[in-house]
Formats: sequence, structure tokens, C-alpha cells
Amino acid sequence: MAGSISLVEGGTVTTPQGFRAGATFAGLKTYAEDKLDLGIIFSEVPCTAAGVFTSSAIISPSVTVCRENIAKGPIRGLIVNAGIANACVGDQGYLDAQRGVSLASKHLGVQAEEVLICSTGVIGVELPMSLIETGIGNIQLSDDGGHDLARAMMTTDTRPKEIAVSFEIDGKQVQMGGVTKGSGMIHPNMATMLAFVTTDAAVDPGFLQSTVSEVADISFNMMTVDGDSSTNDSFIVMANGMTGNQPINGGSPGAEAFKEALTEVSVHLAREMARDGEGATRLIVVEVEGARDTADARKAARTVASSNLVKSAVYGADPNWGRLMMALGRSGAEADETKVDLYINGVCIMQEGKPIPFHRDAVVALMRGPEVTFGLHLNLGAGQATAWGCDLTEQYVIINSAYTT
Amino acid sequence: MAGSISLVEGGTVTTPQGFRAGATFAGLKTYAEDKLDLGIIFSEVPCTAAGVFTSSAIISPSVTVCRENIAKGPIRGLIVNAGIANACVGDQGYLDAQRGVSLASKHLGVQAEEVLICSTGVIGVELPMSLIETGIGNIQLSDDGGHDLARAMMTTDTRPKEIAVSFEIDGKQVQMGGVTKGSGMIHPNMATMLAFVTTDAAVDPGFLQSTVSEVADISFNMMTVDGDSSTNDSFIVMANGMTGNQPINGGSPGAEAFKEALTEVSVHLAREMARDGEGATRLIVVEVEGARDTADARKAARTVASSNLVKSAVYGADPNWGRLMMALGRSGAEADETKVDLYINGVCIMQEGKPIPFHRDAVVALMRGPEVTFGLHLNLGAGQATAWGCDLTEQYVIINSAYTT
Repeated sequence: MAGSISLVEGGTVTTPQGFRAGATFAGLKTYAEDKLDLGIIFSEVPCTAAGVFTSSAIISPSVTVCRENIAKGPIRGLIVNAGIANACVGDQGYLDAQRGVSLASKHLGVQAEEVLICSTGVIGVELPMSLIETGIGNIQLSDDGGHDLARAMMTTDTRPKEIAVSFEIDGKQVQMGGVTKGSGMIHPNMATMLAFVTTDAAVDPGFLQSTVSEVADISFNMMTVDGDSSTNDSFIVMANGMTGNQPINGGSPGAEAFKEALTEVSVHLAREMARDGEGATRLIVVEVEGARDTADARKAARTVASSNLVKSAVYGADPNWGRLMMALGRSGAEADETKVDLYINGVCIMQEGKPIPFHRDAVVALMRGPEVTFGLHLNLGAGQATAWGCDLTEQYVIINSAYTT
Repeated sequence: MAGSISLVEGGTVTTPQGFRAGATFAGLKTYAEDKLDLGIIFSEVPCTAAGVFTSSAIISPSVTVCRENIAKGPIRGLIVNAGIANACVGDQGYLDAQRGVSLASKHLGVQAEEVLICSTGVIGVELPMSLIETGIGNIQLSDDGGHDLARAMMTTDTRPKEIAVSFEIDGKQVQMGGVTKGSGMIHPNMATMLAFVTTDAAVDPGFLQSTVSEVADISFNMMTVDGDSSTNDSFIVMANGMTGNQPINGGSPGAEAFKEALTEVSVHLAREMARDGEGATRLIVVEVEGARDTADARKAARTVASSNLVKSAVYGADPNWGRLMMALGRSGAEADETKVDLYINGVCIMQEGKPIPFHRDAVVALMRGPEVTFGLHLNLGAGQATAWGCDLTEQYVIINSAYTT
């Protein structure tokens, strides 16, 4: 954590003031051990909200409703279901998403357009609205309900992923909580990345949207499990202002601190999502420095982190730097072989494009740890970027193929 | 085969008149069962040559020498080694590539600039030139040496991949032979796609280069095993003119027939390469129709064929059409969900964006065959493209990770 940001032990999306959450088993996620599959986040007061959504050409109507309602104004709550993605079901999908927010809004005593809806799970299957209606009625909100909500979002995730931090703005203590679910596929269709952040800071809507977009680009958008993005990917931030600070905008003294906190939370969640990628045994971190520019650095880092050959090598704890060079070469980033330095967990294994002798057994041992960091120094400019991924294992293939045969 | 093109049974790169080939074990490919690792293709008379090479920013000096020598003029021969890629070894790589063509040219009695060199295998290791020198001296060229050459190119390939066809131009019988090696990785670094085509047709150099580029775009460039391209990928065509036809150019009556034959040969080799992808159990064919334009069709076909989620589903013979929609959505191609029709091996499973009932067991049975064809009809325009890939299996992961642990 950066100096002024402190971690809240056991924190979650209900850590910030005025947020409550709860979850239930509605009957959608029948294949998972953890049966919670429907949850709500609620704020006692209206929130400024902003989001970044999937760039896919095929999108879930749940995403459409989120976009519409965020554009309309303040948000009070969010309903999330796991098990069914509400995608590729024709016109019914939009009707169901609308009905979902309507049912949740009645349960919460707010307007339908003040509620967002997120879905993850099977595509091509309609949401069973009667189960959802019953489920919503069963959801009890509480001040520490964030943990149940985190479980209710999970699909093939092996564990919930949550965090909360606190920091100071205007001499007031601000809290921010986050939760995410990954990434990798879900029986029998695709998974989705969902991430929700709550904060009790007051934030100007325009500043919030631009900050959310900027932070997404250096956190969730730099994370890859299998290179496949979904119809439902969503990253939503809700700020309810209960701290009582002056709303933060681009010129506020607190703008930097807010962005920094959102970055800390988002990068933490992105890393944990990659670490919990389907079948993964270790986290891959790719740090690119000295690229011609930031765009090049991002391309290089993402391409290396998503290469099946690099991912397989990491699974085998193999310091196979040739695969790094191959992925760098095909990334589209400018590269001059004679200037490239490579590092594996801090050990230099190539300098100015030539392999240098290294203690192979020591590097293999380093790579057997929970985290493998590749440093690629291109020595061409000031561009830098970090990407996160995970290794490719037999278990990934089994999870994603074996269930029908 | 198209009407006027006939397959030559057992044909290879030495099927066309005037081409000889041979191979030996030089000591480079010590890990494979098939020990041939150094081969030569030779033409009795000078050839017009053209090539398409890797688009990576990190390229093998062997590729550099090919580009230089093709630019200089007619080509007499080509030397290929498997086991070491001659990449990422600093300045020595270019010196070794030059020495390789020089040694081969002396053995063949031609000029060094008339010889090309292709390498595939480990990167970051220098070519052992003394072994190569001895090896070249041991290569005996023969009229049916193409088969040995095909074996000498193999790395993790499980079988050689060759073809020859004949067709008529100017009332004369023309022959064309092709050979390739894949694709997927090689212990302990990356593999490379190499493809060589020989023909006894006479072809104008400019027309040959433009045709080779065009054909590469609808064959090798639409083939994927793991999405990773290498420092050494090369597709080279040599035409020696021994048929005695008028050199074919864009205006020749034979131009279409020549392009068609080159397409047949290249698509066959690309398909066989995908089918023999590392760990693969079946070929994936993705046929996109009705895209807004060809560029969109190509993006959609390639994205679907290279999706780990689609590939895993094919391994499990799972008619998981949600993954097709997901990959289509993220491909960058324009798509309107409400217009998309999907087919699996000819069975329509989605129409106008809505799933239609299908006999799941029957489709699973179809998918258990050696080839799975996905049809994506976007119904937006006239763009069409076909891509080839293979399934993702535990064996792929094992091949590419397990050797060091």
C-alpha cells in the first residue's frame, strides 16, 4: 500500500459507510459447491456511479441496462446473479434485465432506474425470473453482507476476492471496498469478469467516470486468464458521499489520493483474479520498461502474459526466455533485439539481446514460487506497463473440456 | 481438388521437373526420434523465387539472408535445419546464416547468393557450424529426396506433411510440390512454420511475389495452433521454368490456374499443419460468411479458431455455441447478435441470434470425428473467410511444460 493508504483487515464492499449487502441461493448456480448465487449491494443514500463495460460486439442486456441507468443519474443499488449470463437470448434478455432491476428496486424501496444489474454464467439460457423474484425477497441486507455477496458472484472461482482500504481526503477518513469474480470459463459456457467498488467519498460524476476508465486501463484491462473476454464484463464504482468531503473533481486536492486508492484496490483485485484463473498454479507478472511509448509497453506486456507458450513454460517452472522474445517480437511493439534485457524474478538472463549465463537451477527454484515476474527492458523510450496472467495447466483444459465427455 | 488440378500420389517437392533434394543427420535435433535434421532442395536450373516471412519484430538472421538473396535474383537451392532456430544469438547469427549458404553453395556448385537458408528449433543457441559443414558434405541429392527433406524439417511434428499436384498451362503439364512443418512449440523453445513450394512452371518474379502474398493470406495466415508466431516463419516458392511455358504474369491465360494450384497446395499444407498441432486430436475449421467485408471475416474466423475456450470445447466434443458467440463478439468484427446463424458440422444450432433446439447427442457424435467445422453466418455483407486450428488438450500443456520438472 502507498504511504497514505491503509488496508482494512477483512474489509469488503460494505466497509465504506452506508453500504449494506446480502445474498441468497435462488437456484441458478446449481453446479458449484457454494450455492449463494444472487446478491445485492445497497447504499442508504444515492451514489454517483461510473462503469467500464465489455468491448465485445455481443453484449448482455444486463450490461445495456447498467449503461442506461448510470447515464440517467444517481444509483442506489446493484443486483448480481451468478449461473446465467442473460446473453444471446433474443429480446427476452432486455425484458428480464429490466424486470430484475424493477424487482430489486421494490425490495429496496427505490426507483428501478436507480438499480444496476450484472449477470455471469451460461449464455443462451433465459433468466428464470420466478426464481429471481423469490430470491430477491429472501435477501437480507446487513452491514457486513459484503462477504456473502462476494461468494454469490463466484462461478469457477475457487475463492472470493475482496479488499478494503482507507485514506484521507479533506482531513476526513474515506473508505473504499472492492470485490471481483473471474475470469476463465464457466460450465457450460463462458465466465465474466465482474468487479464492484464502493466508497463513501463524494465524487463528481465526470471525474469518477474518467478516473474509472483510466484505472481500468492499468488494472483489469492488463489482466488475462485465457484471452477470451465476455459479453458481460463490467467494472462499476459507486460513491455515496457519506464521508461529507467536498465532491472530488480533477482540481481537488484529494483527486490524486482517490485515484491512487482506486488503483490500489483495482490492481489488487486484478492480480487476485489472475492468480485464481482456472487451473492456475501461479501468478505471472510481466513488467515492461523502456518501450517506445505506453501503448507499445501495454501491447508487449499483454502479449507476453497471454501467450500459451509463456504460460505453459511458467507451469513447468522453465526459464524459457526464448518464448518471451517470441511473444515480444509478435506483440506489435517496436523492439530492437540488440537492446533487450530480460529478467526472471529479478535475475538478468539476457542483456542487449544476448543470453548471459545464469544459474538455471536457482531460477527454476525461483519460478516454483507462487509468483513469476518477467522484466522486459526494451531500452527504446519511456513507455512502461505491467500485465498479470496465470500459467496454463492441464487443469485448465480439463475444466473447460471434460464435462461433456 | 478443383477440376483441372490433379493430385500426384505420393508427390513432394521433388515431383516437379529438375528439383532434387536430400537430408542427413548433422547432430542438431538430438531430442526427436527422427534424427534427420539438415536438408537441401536443389534445382538444376535457376529459379524465380518469392517468399513471405514472419512479421515479428525479432527475426532470425536466416530470414534476413533469405530476404536478401531473393531480392538479388534467381535462386538455385535452399538449405534447412531443424533443432536450432539461429535466433537471438547476437551478430553471430547473421555470420552463421551467411556461412551456411556459402557452404551449401560450394556443395551444390552454385553462388552463395543463389542459396536460401531456413532454421527452426531452439532460440538463443548458436548454430554449430562444424556439424553443419560436415552435414552438408554428407547430403546426397536425389530425384525422390523430397520425403527425406520433409522429415529433416520436423521438430515436434508427428508426421511429415507433403503434397504435389499437376495442372495444365499453355497445353503443357505443370507440376507443383509442397512441404511444411508446424507449428506449436519445440523443446525447449519455439517452433516455426516453414513451408516450401517448388514448381516447374515459368513464372514472372513480380507476379510470383504478389501471388505468394495473396495465397499466404488465405492459407498459412489463416492457420493457428497456439497463436504464437515465431522469429523464423517462412513460406518460400521456387519456380524453375522447366515446363517451358511462357512465364506466367498477371495477364497470362495460366495466371488463374497457377494461383488456384498454389492455393490448393498451401491450404492443404496449412490444414495438415493445424491437424498436426501439438497435442491436437482434431482439426477445427471456421467458415465465416456474410461479414461486413473480408477483413472482418478474417478477424472473426481467426479469433474463433484461436480461442482457448473454443479449442477446449472442441477437445471435449462440446457443442458449446456460447463460446463461438463470445469469440465472435470480441474479434473486432462487426456483428449484430440478432442476425447471426451458427452451424456445427452443418447442423444449425442458432438462427438470428436465438438458440434453436438441436439433437445434442447427434452433434456431440459429429464433433467426435477428426474434423469440426463451425459455420458463422453474420448476414451483414459479402465478406467470407476460412480459418483452421486445432483443439487444446492436456497433451499440449504437457509437451510445452513438463520437460523441465
